[in-house]
Amino acid sequence: MDEKERDSAVSGSPVMGRRGFLRAGASVGALAVGAGAGARAMAEGTPDPLITEQQPWASQWGDGVDATPYGLPIRFEGDVIRRNVPWLTADVVSSINFTPIHALDGTITPTGCAFERHHSGAIELAKEDYRLMINGLVETPLVFTYEDLERFPRVNRTLFLECAANSGMEWAGAQLNGVQFTQGMIHNMQYSGVPLRTLLEEAGVKPEGKWVYVEGADASSNGRSIPLEKAMDDVIVAIKANGEALRKEHGYPARLCVPGWEGNMWVKWLRRVEVTDEPVQSREETSKYTDTLADGTSRKWTWVMDAKSVITSPSPQMPIRHGKGPLVITGLAWSGRGAITQVDVSIDGGKSWQVARLAEPGVAMALTRFYLDFDWDGSEMLLQSRAHDETGYVQPTKDQLRAIRGENSVYHNNGIQTWWVKPTGEAENVEVSS
Amino acid sequence: MDEKERDSAVSGSPVMGRRGFLRAGASVGALAVGAGAGARAMAEGTPDPLITEQQPWASQWGDGVDATPYGLPIRFEGDVIRRNVPWLTADVVSSINFTPIHALDGTITPTGCAFERHHSGAIELAKEDYRLMINGLVETPLVFTYEDLERFPRVNRTLFLECAANSGMEWAGAQLNGVQFTQGMIHNMQYSGVPLRTLLEEAGVKPEGKWVYVEGADASSNGRSIPLEKAMDDVIVAIKANGEALRKEHGYPARLCVPGWEGNMWVKWLRRVEVTDEPVQSREETSKYTDTLADGTSRKWTWVMDAKSVITSPSPQMPIRHGKGPLVITGLAWSGRGAITQVDVSIDGGKSWQVARLAEPGVAMALTRFYLDFDWDGSEMLLQSRAHDETGYVQPTKDQLRAIRGENSVYHNNGIQTWWVKPTGEAENVEVSS
Repeated sequence: MDEKERDSAVSGSPVMGRRGFLRAGASVGALAVGAGAGARAMAEGTPDPLITEQQPWASQWGDGVDATPYGLPIRFEGDVIRRNVPWLTADVVSSINFTPIHALDGTITPTGCAFERHHSGAIELAKEDYRLMINGLVETPLVFTYEDLERFPRVNRTLFLECAANSGMEWAGAQLNGVQFTQGMIHNMQYSGVPLRTLLEEAGVKPEGKWVYVEGADASSNGRSIPLEKAMDDVIVAIKANGEALRKEHGYPARLCVPGWEGNMWVKWLRRVEVTDEPVQSREETSKYTDTLADGTSRKWTWVMDAKSVITSPSPQMPIRHGKGPLVITGLAWSGRGAITQVDVSIDGGKSWQVARLAEPGVAMALTRFYLDFDWDGSEMLLQSRAHDETGYVQPTKDQLRAIRGENSVYHNNGIQTWWVKPTGEAENVEVSS
Repeated sequence: MDEKERDSAVSGSPVMGRRGFLRAGASVGALAVGAGAGARAMAEGTPDPLITEQQPWASQWGDGVDATPYGLPIRFEGDVIRRNVPWLTADVVSSINFTPIHALDGTITPTGCAFERHHSGAIELAKEDYRLMINGLVETPLVFTYEDLERFPRVNRTLFLECAANSGMEWAGAQLNGVQFTQGMIHNMQYSGVPLRTLLEEAGVKPEGKWVYVEGADASSNGRSIPLEKAMDDVIVAIKANGEALRKEHGYPARLCVPGWEGNMWVKWLRRVEVTDEPVQSREETSKYTDTLADGTSRKWTWVMDAKSVITSPSPQMPIRHGKGPLVITGLAWSGRGAITQVDVSIDGGKSWQVARLAEPGVAMALTRFYLDFDWDGSEMLLQSRAHDETGYVQPTKDQLRAIRGENSVYHNNGIQTWWVKPTGEAENVEVSS
């Protein structure tokens, strides 16, 4: 076939051309579809008009580039959105919207559907109206405009943000039937901004300064105390996420990033950093964001998010629709103490484990994608994943956590999640004893 | 100050509380703002009501989480959008929208404003209607559904896509006054998908197969020939970009990624891969996407995008507004032959160079962000950047390119860009002889 014939065959020209191409091409009546390293024909079909016949989209103009100066997902993906759980919060301004992690791949969270949580709603704060004060135990109290922040040396870092309450509704047992809701208070974005250390050094921290108290410009203020050592280590005042200006719901025009530590400390609409000699013991770090233990006492200053993982597909929102045979089992793993080094997957509720494949080497304080390329025999499974991080820590079972923490906690539930996959391919949030 | 006072001071309660806080806090009348390692006071101000007085956003509820199930940028950023150049193309369906790289930071391109280019418009193709055929010199011709693709082992990789025509309007001299238009036919996304090699091995490539011919489902088909060696190396059939389903304008539901090679080969709405013994010599690789040389002949099969860089800020669309003093000079660098190892910046049109700081180590076939933290004395500058890649290649000047390529080319212009920054801070696209 010469190029002229080819062009007429493929560019939506006369049907004869296309038929000619197909006669020349292959035995269309016996097309086979395979999958996986242990490949075999999964189906043998009759000619499929979707590939053998000209389709409307091959003979019409599509949309021009003026259609979407700033694009949104195609309408077929309208289900891939942040969702809340109506009974979970008293009102929509002090609420939570969960990332649809069941429908995503890779590690970058699309900004448009990245987890958001506000304590008094997402405020609209223009760059011109933005001010950041550094005060307290410093040589020179300072106030920065947004433009000032843009003049300091910047860093880039991809970081996960996980709410301390992620999986918090599961302490007393499996409750929410979807990974979006059980583990979706998380996102992972590439942040650009100024190290907080730079700004603190500009102000000059006095020797008696041991903590910083950070607060936002919203009505809640969401004040939190951070040890000076952490503030001077890797905390960032971010002005961009995933390349662009922060979204309103993520703290436009500037938020704090506290790598590996609970999301509540990542203060949005960052307004003030006060250097103090001791922690403030604010509402957000006393009555909230402390961990109830099995003995009825509480533990505070539990800032780090320990290693955790979850299978995102298959899962209750992502059942297996194609029946037995090759199946990609995939999920996410992360640790606030460093890089993920290994993820194990079990199909029998933790009795036996296989080492999953990491899509890319683990990055400290960022999400890691794992895959297990599996040949499903169609029988039921109790799917679990278990993360290891570079400190040697291994993700615990829920029962192991409960032995210390009891069932009345809200925060820091990094227990192993179980999905019961039925022979139909449907999946359900269950627990197995361990 | 105890916590009660603090809470009333910071959470939008009585003004007296706030005033009390400020009296306790610091000498507000002498706030200083500094920047940079060689810090000094850039301004001394009177008390600033934006930080000393209660603002409306601190005493009102913000938006609840139901406001944006899938979010868009805040209205203040309405200018950060893809834009076309009306005179550049004959019609909007066969046109180009440029990434607003002047306004971005980091390396991930936000999907919503990532470069798009179509040859017959962006088509709407549902997953259910999607088919991918592998045919030609194979043991078993195959047709895959979208669901089939999801069953193969997947890989993740962050890759730049640069149109071969990026900077193509600048061959005969500086023409477009904005980095969005001179270098914005590029994006950088984290792709997830199936190696093309896996699908080809599933079909079984015959020994005489040396090339693949790839085409899309749109009316243009945009067919291109790719050597089998590359197809079996690192080419990906991608189903996700930046974590989510491909956008319609980026080839939903599946596109080809050809790491480091010109964007025209990254066929969208991928429909067919034919294994052939020789290249097809299609329209897109003969009359288009070949490089005119100074002697009037043309060079074809120039697939790789050579090392290139550009300063994104300051630039014509991002003038310096804050006057002299600390200035972050930043930009992007990339190479289709491997990782960026160094970027140099000149302020005198290439007479002298300083080594810029890479935000993170260069990643092969992905964008690299660089910064030069600079103390601007307010005099005019001829700003340039120059990329080095791991092969030892150094980005050439435009004059060096023209000595071989002449001025009538369109493609593969990776010459050094010059911005003339005036004492006012305004910047202009100019050329200097070299």
